[in-house]
Amino acid sequence: MAAISYELKHICKQSGARYGILHTPHGDVETPMFMPVGTLATVKGISPEMLKEMHSQVILANTYHLWLRPGEDVIAQAGGLHKFMNYNGPMLTDSGGFQVFSLGKTRKIEEEGVKFKSIIDGSSLFLSPEKAIEIQNKLGADIIMSFDECAPYPCTYEYMKNSMERTLRWAKRGKEAHKNTDKQALFGIVQGGEFPDLREHCAKELVAMDFPGYSIGGTSVGEPKDVMYKMVDDAIKWLPEDKPRYLMGVGNPIDLIECAIRGIDMYDCVLPTRVARHGAVMTSQGRLNINNEKFKYDFTPLDPECDCYACKNYTKAYIRHLHKCDEIFGKTLLSIHNVNFLLQLAKDIREAIKEDRLLDFKEEFLNKYGHDVYKRAF
Amino acid sequence: MAAISYELKHICKQSGARYGILHTPHGDVETPMFMPVGTLATVKGISPEMLKEMHSQVILANTYHLWLRPGEDVIAQAGGLHKFMNYNGPMLTDSGGFQVFSLGKTRKIEEEGVKFKSIIDGSSLFLSPEKAIEIQNKLGADIIMSFDECAPYPCTYEYMKNSMERTLRWAKRGKEAHKNTDKQALFGIVQGGEFPDLREHCAKELVAMDFPGYSIGGTSVGEPKDVMYKMVDDAIKWLPEDKPRYLMGVGNPIDLIECAIRGIDMYDCVLPTRVARHGAVMTSQGRLNINNEKFKYDFTPLDPECDCYACKNYTKAYIRHLHKCDEIFGKTLLSIHNVNFLLQLAKDIREAIKEDRLLDFKEEFLNKYGHDVYKRAF
Repeated sequence: MAAISYELKHICKQSGARYGILHTPHGDVETPMFMPVGTLATVKGISPEMLKEMHSQVILANTYHLWLRPGEDVIAQAGGLHKFMNYNGPMLTDSGGFQVFSLGKTRKIEEEGVKFKSIIDGSSLFLSPEKAIEIQNKLGADIIMSFDECAPYPCTYEYMKNSMERTLRWAKRGKEAHKNTDKQALFGIVQGGEFPDLREHCAKELVAMDFPGYSIGGTSVGEPKDVMYKMVDDAIKWLPEDKPRYLMGVGNPIDLIECAIRGIDMYDCVLPTRVARHGAVMTSQGRLNINNEKFKYDFTPLDPECDCYACKNYTKAYIRHLHKCDEIFGKTLLSIHNVNFLLQLAKDIREAIKEDRLLDFKEEFLNKYGHDVYKRAF
Repeated sequence: MAAISYELKHICKQSGARYGILHTPHGDVETPMFMPVGTLATVKGISPEMLKEMHSQVILANTYHLWLRPGEDVIAQAGGLHKFMNYNGPMLTDSGGFQVFSLGKTRKIEEEGVKFKSIIDGSSLFLSPEKAIEIQNKLGADIIMSFDECAPYPCTYEYMKNSMERTLRWAKRGKEAHKNTDKQALFGIVQGGEFPDLREHCAKELVAMDFPGYSIGGTSVGEPKDVMYKMVDDAIKWLPEDKPRYLMGVGNPIDLIECAIRGIDMYDCVLPTRVARHGAVMTSQGRLNINNEKFKYDFTPLDPECDCYACKNYTKAYIRHLHKCDEIFGKTLLSIHNVNFLLQLAKDIREAIKEDRLLDFKEEFLNKYGHDVYKRAF
C-alpha cells in the first residue's frame, strides 16, 4: 500500500486552484499548505507544541544538515525523526539537492553523485542518489525527495539539459534504492530551468516512473518572479491531477497565492524564521521592521489582524526591546508570528478556493499588503 | 497599608530553617524560594507560560539594564513591568547596586551617587539612591531594592566601613524618595563584607529604619563558601523574625540548602540560565555537560528524577544535538531544566522544613549530587 494519497476535493471555479486532502502515515493535511522548515530537526525558535497550536500541518527537515549533525544513525537509533524531535505530525525531508546548488563553491558533481566539503569541518563527503535515499529511509519522514541537481539560474540550455537528464537518471536510481515505500512517499523533482521543452521532458519521464508526488525544483535561486511563475506553468501541465505538487523553497506570500492559482499544493521556505531573526515582520498591512524607532512606544500587536501567540500577548514595544537586546524570546516571538502568517495565509487560500474566489482574495490581499510585494523578497 | 507581609509558618526543629508565606500585591508565595532572573524583562529563553508551568513564584528584573534599554519611561507607559512583559505574578527589581561592583572599571562612586559609562554606547550615566528608586517606582515591581554599593571581596576594613556607612545614608535617602509604599515594598540591604561588627552595625541601623524586608548583599563576589556562610550568620542574627530575608545573587544548589538552614527566605541567580547556554546541566546526580560525546546516543532524559518540560519530552541525544548546532530551542530546553531544578530544590527544602528534617535532606542531597559541590560554582 502507498504511504500517502492525494484527494482532490475542489477546484476553484474562478482561478483553477486546487483544494485537497493529503493522507499521510502521521495524519491528514489540507492543501494548499505551507510547511515550516526545521533544518536541524527543530523549527528555529518554535516548540513542537507551539507548531501544533498554530495548526502547522507538515514540517520539513534537511537531509544534508542532519547527515552532518547529528548523523542519520543517531536519529535512526532514536526511532526516526518523529521520535528524535518528539513531533508526531507529518514530516518531509529534502534530499540534499538544494545544497548541490547552495554550496556551489565547495562541491563537485559527477554521474555517480556529488562530492562536498563539509560545512562543519571541511572534510570530504559524498552524496549519491542511493545514499540520499538511504539517509532519508533512516530519518523516516512521511515524504522524501529524490536526489537532484538544483541548477543555478541563469544557466545555458546545454548545461540544464545535461543536468536535468542526470537528475532523471538519479531519480530512477533513487526509486530503486528506496525501501519503506509503504511508510515513506518518494517524490520526483521536475527540473529543466526556464526551458519549457526541458521541463516537459523531465515531467513526462518522471510521471512515467510513477511517483506518489512531484516537486518542482530549480525555483527560488535568483530568478525573477515572472520567470518562476512560467517555470511552474511549464512543469505543472504535465503532472497528473491525482498526485500532490510541491513547489520547493518558495515562501513569499504573493507566491503562495500566485502558484496556488497555477495548481501548486505544497510550499516550504526558511524565509519566515530567517527574516524574523533579523527583525522583519510579515503583517496583513505589509512588511515592517521591528527595529524601527517608531515602535519604541507602540503598545499594539505586530499585526492587528493576527491571533498568534505573539500578537495575543505582546506589543511591538516589548518585542522591539527584546529584539534589540538580542534576547532569545524575541526571536521566538517574531518566528512564531511570521510562520503563523504563512500558515494562516495558506488557510485563507484554501477557504478562498472552496468559495471559488481566489482571484478576488488575491486582489484583497494585494490592496492591504501592497502591490510592491512582487518586487521584493517578501 | 504595607505592600507585602511575611507570615512565619514553621521553623524546622532539626535545622532552624524557616518556612513562610510572603503576601505580595501579585499573589502569595512560599519561602524559602528561588527567583529566576529576567535581566531585561525576560527570563532568557523561557516564556511566562512556561515559568507558570514550572510553578515559578517571583521573577527578578534588573534596574540598571532596563534603565538603559528600553528605558524606564517605555515600561511606565506600558503600565509597568508586569504589563510590559505580560507576566502577572510577583516581581522584584534590584537597584543597580550590583552593577556598582560588576562594572568596577567604568564607574566612579561619590556621596551623591555613582557615575557609570553605559555598557551600550559608552555615554555618561549617573545613578543615585533617589534615581534608582524613581526608576523602580516606574518599573512597578512588587519588591524593590535600596541603592547600595556591593563592595568587592576582599577589601580593607576601612574601605568596607566607609562603603557600608554610605550605603546606610543611601538607604535612608532611598526610603525618603520611595513613592508607592502601598504597592511596592522597599528592602534595605545589609552590607559590611566579612567584618562581623560592620554587618551588625549595618543590620541594626537598617532595622531601626523599619524596612518591610532585608537583603544580604556583598555575597557571590568571589569569596569562599565558608566566608559567605559566615557573612550570612553575621548579618541574619540582627534581622527581625517577622520580615523576609533575601540573599542576593546566590544560586548554587548547596547554598540554597546551607543558607535556608541559616534563616534565608529568598534567593536569585543568573546561574541556571547562564550555564545552560553553555551546555551545563544541574541534575539530581550532579552536574553534567551536554556537549560530552558520551551523550550522542543517550536517549534518556537530562535527569531521570526531573519532570520538567525538557525531561518529559526530550532526550540527552536530541538536546545535545540542538546545543551543538547552537539552536535556540536547545538553549530554551536547557534553561527550562536548570531553572526548574532550582525551583524544585527550593520546594524540596520547604517540604523538608515542614517535616523537620532539613539536615537529613542536606545529607541525602549531597550523597546524590556529590560532596564536591562546595568547591565548585554549582
